Amino acid sequence: MTFNSKLRAAQRFNNSLLCIGLDTDVAKLPGFLRTFENPQAEFNRRIIEATSDMVCAYKLNSAFYEAEGEKGWQAMIESSRNIPPALISIGDAKRGDIGNSSERYAATFFHTLKFDAVTVSPYMGKDSLIPFIQSPDRCAFILALTSNPGSKDFQHLKVGNKFLYEKVVEACLKWNTKKNIGFVAGATRPKELRSVRKKAPSVPLLIPGVGSQGGSVEEAVRYGCDTHGMMAIINVSRSVIYASTGEDFADAARREAQKLREEINMWREKIFHS
Amino acid sequence: MTFNSKLRAAQRFNNSLLCIGLDTDVAKLPGFLRTFENPQAEFNRRIIEATSDMVCAYKLNSAFYEAEGEKGWQAMIESSRNIPPALISIGDAKRGDIGNSSERYAATFFHTLKFDAVTVSPYMGKDSLIPFIQSPDRCAFILALTSNPGSKDFQHLKVGNKFLYEKVVEACLKWNTKKNIGFVAGATRPKELRSVRKKAPSVPLLIPGVGSQGGSVEEAVRYGCDTHGMMAIINVSRSVIYASTGEDFADAARREAQKLREEINMWREKIFHS
Repeated sequence: MTFNSKLRAAQRFNNSLLCIGLDTDVAKLPGFLRTFENPQAEFNRRIIEATSDMVCAYKLNSAFYEAEGEKGWQAMIESSRNIPPALISIGDAKRGDIGNSSERYAATFFHTLKFDAVTVSPYMGKDSLIPFIQSPDRCAFILALTSNPGSKDFQHLKVGNKFLYEKVVEACLKWNTKKNIGFVAGATRPKELRSVRKKAPSVPLLIPGVGSQGGSVEEAVRYGCDTHGMMAIINVSRSVIYASTGEDFADAARREAQKLREEINMWREKIFHS
Repeated sequence: MTFNSKLRAAQRFNNSLLCIGLDTDVAKLPGFLRTFENPQAEFNRRIIEATSDMVCAYKLNSAFYEAEGEKGWQAMIESSRNIPPALISIGDAKRGDIGNSSERYAATFFHTLKFDAVTVSPYMGKDSLIPFIQSPDRCAFILALTSNPGSKDFQHLKVGNKFLYEKVVEACLKWNTKKNIGFVAGATRPKELRSVRKKAPSVPLLIPGVGSQGGSVEEAVRYGCDTHGMMAIINVSRSVIYASTGEDFADAARREAQKLREEINMWREKIFHS
């Protein structure tokens, strides 16, 4: 199955565009988990178990796992394995290197860690991206417009009459011969999100920035979805996984995820009648 | 000691600007190493032992280690530990993420893996770089002008009357309040390397592209060094570490490193009388 088909199926299956970001910081875990052999993996296992009927995808940010060394890698492998196969798993790695190095990164995230998709930085150009888009069942989400304050520093530079992030989107679409490129475009800059969706009407968009970063759910839906109210993956991390810091953290995450799914679906209904 | 002082001392100590890139691909290791518990770590240990009086630095590209999972992380930790403390160790990771994630990456590469420096991608802007430049004894080499063919795709876009890579250099220099930013600038584009050095006369430049990628040693020295013939770190990976594929690989790497150091020093003498 192609990545895009799997994504559509996952979004229909759970009637959800929500993605939970497992940015699982060991320092923020509920204390009682410390007695488990791998607290990060156990935290993720419980979050996934409690929310897997509420989301279309899970995203693991490799920064939080690498910081724990070998144990973190073990947690990343276990968590990726715990994501139900009908749902999308995303390795948020923001990698990108010369061809032979990017090949090794693609092997790591697609084969060792078995993610369906990985986030990739565009700065090094075409040959750094190609190893990530070799197989139609695996997707590369290329950073176009990120959700952080620094996105203005380079992504918003004017190249002729366009912004750099628009040039990135246009170039990558030319390289999208296997139809498995997506883009990262943040909800914190709705006008620019709309411009990315306009240039790329049908590709999957991974949309961070809702929740702790302050982006609006309405705008993420309105400007991020395709014309059928699909293909936007709206990621929320901290405000879901740390909804409670106590023993009830998984239940609290479920309630928060349910609320977000409903809010997203209310806007989908209003805007796209879908 | 600041990073820049340590680099100068290392370059004087071995009279060398050479950096060996430990892009250690398990598929390319000499067969007899397969019986060792960790062939990657053993390969690196022998290369380091054979060459540590020939270089100012070693650079480990994380792509080749992550692909081996936990064993690869173990190899990266061991290899970093095996680099003599007087020399510079660089984690070639090309990371960069929103602030709280970049903080975790910085912790990984500077504390868990104990590298002196790490390579960082600039696309996400200032707040993605700041966590890597918190401490004057640790350096972030920011990708400005990479050595691969795809460097032309975005890095050479014109922003007003400047190229994007020039805008990256100018912006980062403004953020360089702790004097611990360096740049990656490839030897495969000598004219542009010269322009980076002109804009940043005294910062360390990490220069890939000599060797398998075809860049010239003369141009790397001429355009990469500061006015004292220092502060360029000329990286060579494959043509040194795979100089022989037999049991004599470490000796062959030493011979190749010696040849490169001498060639570099001949040009330093000619151009800078240093």
